[in-house]
Amino acid sequence: MKKITILGSTGSIGTQTLDVIANDPERYEVVGLSAGSNLPLLIKQAKQFRPSVVCLANKELAEQAKAELSSSIQVLYGEEGLVELAAKDEADVVVTAIVGSRGLPATLAAIDAGKTIALANKETLVTAGHIVMERARQKGVSIIPVDSEHSAIFQCLNGEDLKALQQLTLTASGGSFRDRTREQLAGVTVAEALNHPNWSMGAKITIDSATMVNKGLEVIEAKWLFDVTYDQINVLIHPESIIHSFVEFSDNSVIAQLGLPDMRVPIQYALTYPERRPTPTGRLDLAAIGKLHFREMDFARYPCLKLAFDCGRAGQSAPTVFNAANEVAVARFLNGEIDFLGIERVLERVLERHSVTAVNDLQAIAAIDAWARKEATVI
Amino acid sequence: MKKITILGSTGSIGTQTLDVIANDPERYEVVGLSAGSNLPLLIKQAKQFRPSVVCLANKELAEQAKAELSSSIQVLYGEEGLVELAAKDEADVVVTAIVGSRGLPATLAAIDAGKTIALANKETLVTAGHIVMERARQKGVSIIPVDSEHSAIFQCLNGEDLKALQQLTLTASGGSFRDRTREQLAGVTVAEALNHPNWSMGAKITIDSATMVNKGLEVIEAKWLFDVTYDQINVLIHPESIIHSFVEFSDNSVIAQLGLPDMRVPIQYALTYPERRPTPTGRLDLAAIGKLHFREMDFARYPCLKLAFDCGRAGQSAPTVFNAANEVAVARFLNGEIDFLGIERVLERVLERHSVTAVNDLQAIAAIDAWARKEATVI
Repeated sequence: MKKITILGSTGSIGTQTLDVIANDPERYEVVGLSAGSNLPLLIKQAKQFRPSVVCLANKELAEQAKAELSSSIQVLYGEEGLVELAAKDEADVVVTAIVGSRGLPATLAAIDAGKTIALANKETLVTAGHIVMERARQKGVSIIPVDSEHSAIFQCLNGEDLKALQQLTLTASGGSFRDRTREQLAGVTVAEALNHPNWSMGAKITIDSATMVNKGLEVIEAKWLFDVTYDQINVLIHPESIIHSFVEFSDNSVIAQLGLPDMRVPIQYALTYPERRPTPTGRLDLAAIGKLHFREMDFARYPCLKLAFDCGRAGQSAPTVFNAANEVAVARFLNGEIDFLGIERVLERVLERHSVTAVNDLQAIAAIDAWARKEATVI
Repeated sequence: MKKITILGSTGSIGTQTLDVIANDPERYEVVGLSAGSNLPLLIKQAKQFRPSVVCLANKELAEQAKAELSSSIQVLYGEEGLVELAAKDEADVVVTAIVGSRGLPATLAAIDAGKTIALANKETLVTAGHIVMERARQKGVSIIPVDSEHSAIFQCLNGEDLKALQQLTLTASGGSFRDRTREQLAGVTVAEALNHPNWSMGAKITIDSATMVNKGLEVIEAKWLFDVTYDQINVLIHPESIIHSFVEFSDNSVIAQLGLPDMRVPIQYALTYPERRPTPTGRLDLAAIGKLHFREMDFARYPCLKLAFDCGRAGQSAPTVFNAANEVAVARFLNGEIDFLGIERVLERVLERHSVTAVNDLQAIAAIDAWARKEATVI
C-alpha cells in the first residue's frame, strides 16, 4: 500500500489524483491533503479519504476545518504548515500539485525527508531546477513528472540510456487560440481563453497554454528533468494532443507516448512507477481518429515561447523572473486588468528591466520573485 | 568488437546489414557470409569484409568461389554448409536474413551454439515458433527482431514488464495496391506489384506486402516473439509507414516507435542492443510530413490477413501450410503462371485441403511444408 500526500488536493491535478486513488483503493492510503481556500472540497475529501493531516492557507480556514473534521485529523495552515505536511513521516509519495512558485519550499522539504516526488508543480524546476535536482540527487530521491508531456518523455526513456538521447520534442496543441492570427488575439475575452480544445485543466495553465508560456515552462522543466541542453529540446504543434511527446535517440529512432488526453494516466503512472495498472480512462483508437497533424512551432506567433527559451539559456534568475511576472500577468488578465496580449507585454518589459544574477538559495529566488511580481503589477 | 555472421548476405537485409557494419567498422567483425546463387556479389562482399568462412547454395558455386577467394577463407555449400556456418565458434550474433523456410535448420543450429539471433527471417517463427522459442529459452539465447514492426515493438517494450502489455498493433502501409479495390486487382502486373510505396525490399516480401500475407506472417511472428494471444494483436493501416508499430499497456498508455522507413535502423539496433549508436539514416521531421493517416484494417479487402489469423489461431501445422503455399504462389505469380488474385486462391484452396496436425519436430514441419508446396504448385 502506497502512502500518498497531495499538496494542492482541491485543484485539477489534486482532484484527479484522488480519482485515481479511489479507483484502486486497496493500493493507496491518503495520509495528507492540502488546499488553499476551497474549504468545502477539502472537508469532503478528508471525510472520504481520511488522511491523518490536512493543511489550509491560513489559521481562520484551519479553525473552520477543525470544527468540521474528526479530532483525529491534525489541521495545519500556512507555508509552515505546508512544509510540515510535506515532510510528515508517513508518506511515501508527495504529489506536488500546487500551482505557482508557492510549492517550492514544501517540495524541498519533501525531498529532504526522502519522499518520492510526483511533480505536478512545474514552477518548482523553473525557478529552482539547479537547487531541487541537486538536492534530489544527494538524497537519492526520484522525481517523477506528472505533466503529460514530461510523463510521456519519462515513459519513452524507460530502459534506455540517457547518453543516447539526441533530442526530445514536446508537443503543443496550440491552445485556445491556435487558429487565430496575432491580429485576431486583440480583445479576446477571458471566457474564450479558458476554453482549451483538448485538455480540461485549471484556469492559470489554460491561459498559459494559449500564450504558449506553459510550453515555455515545460521546456525549462524538461531541461532539468532530463539533463539536456536547450538545443536538444524541440517544440512541435500537434493540435490533437494524441502524441503527448517523444524522444529521438542517436540512431534516429523515435519513441513516442500516445493516448487520449486524460491526466489520470500520467498521474497514476507517477504513483505506480515502474509498474503499470489499469486506469478508468478511454483507450486510444487511431483508426477512429483517422489523422494526426503536425506543424512547426511559430516563434513569431508565440513570442512567449521564445522568451522562455531565452530565459532558460540565460539561466540563473531569468526563469524565476519569467515565471513570476507571468503569474502576475495571468492573474491581471483573469481579473480584467489587462488584455490577452498584455500578458506578453508584461513579460517582455519585466525581463527588459531585469539584470540576470545568480540565485543560489531560496532566499535569493524569493527576492527576485518578489521584485518581478512588483514590476509586473505596475506595468 | 561484435563478431557477426550473416545468413543471406546478398539479399536486401544482408546488404543493408553490411552497410551498417561498414558505417561503424571499428565495432564489428564479419566472420561468416552466406549467399544462394549471387556469386559475384558474395565474392565482392568477402573481399571487402574478409570473413573466415562463406557458404553458397551448391558445390559448383562453392568451387567457383574458392577459385576467386583467398585460400584463408573456408568455403561451404548447401544446407549442411549453412548449418555449419551458423554454428561456427567465432560469431556472437547471427543475422538470419534468408528468405523463406530454408533458414530454419541454420537458425536452430545457431541457437544451439548459443548465438544471439538477429531475426530477419520471419518464416522461422511462423513455421516453428513453438520449437524455436522453447530452444532459445533453454539455451538462454536472445532473439532480437530485425523486421521494422517487431523491432518497433521490441523497442517500445524496453524497460517494461511484459505482464502489463495489453495489446500490440502492427502498422501496415497497405502495400503497392492499397488504393485499389478488389475489382481493380484483377490483371495487375508483376512490375506494378513490385512497386512498394514506402519501403525498398526484396521481391517476395514486396508481393507479400501487396497481398497482406506479409502482415499475416508478422502477426504470427509477433505472437511468438512477445508471448501474446492473437486477440492481443491488432493491425492498423497507416499509409506513411512512419509509426512502425506500437504497444498499449494496461494503463491505456501507448508507446510507439517512429522513424523514416529505413531498415538500417532496426538492423543496427539488433546488432547493438541494448546500446544505440548513430546511423547513416535520415532524421524524422514530423512537421515536414505534416499528417499521419490511420484506418481500420479491412479483412474483406485483404482476405490473406484473415487467413493468417485463422491459421495462427489453429496453430500446429496450419501456419506452415500458409507460409509454404504462399511461397509457391508468389513464385508462380512472379513467373507469370498465375495472376495476382491467384495468390489468395492458391492459399485458400491448399488450406481447405489441409487437416491441421501436430508438428513437433523439423521433420514433421518439412513433410507438411513439402505437401503444401506440392499442392500449391498444381492448383
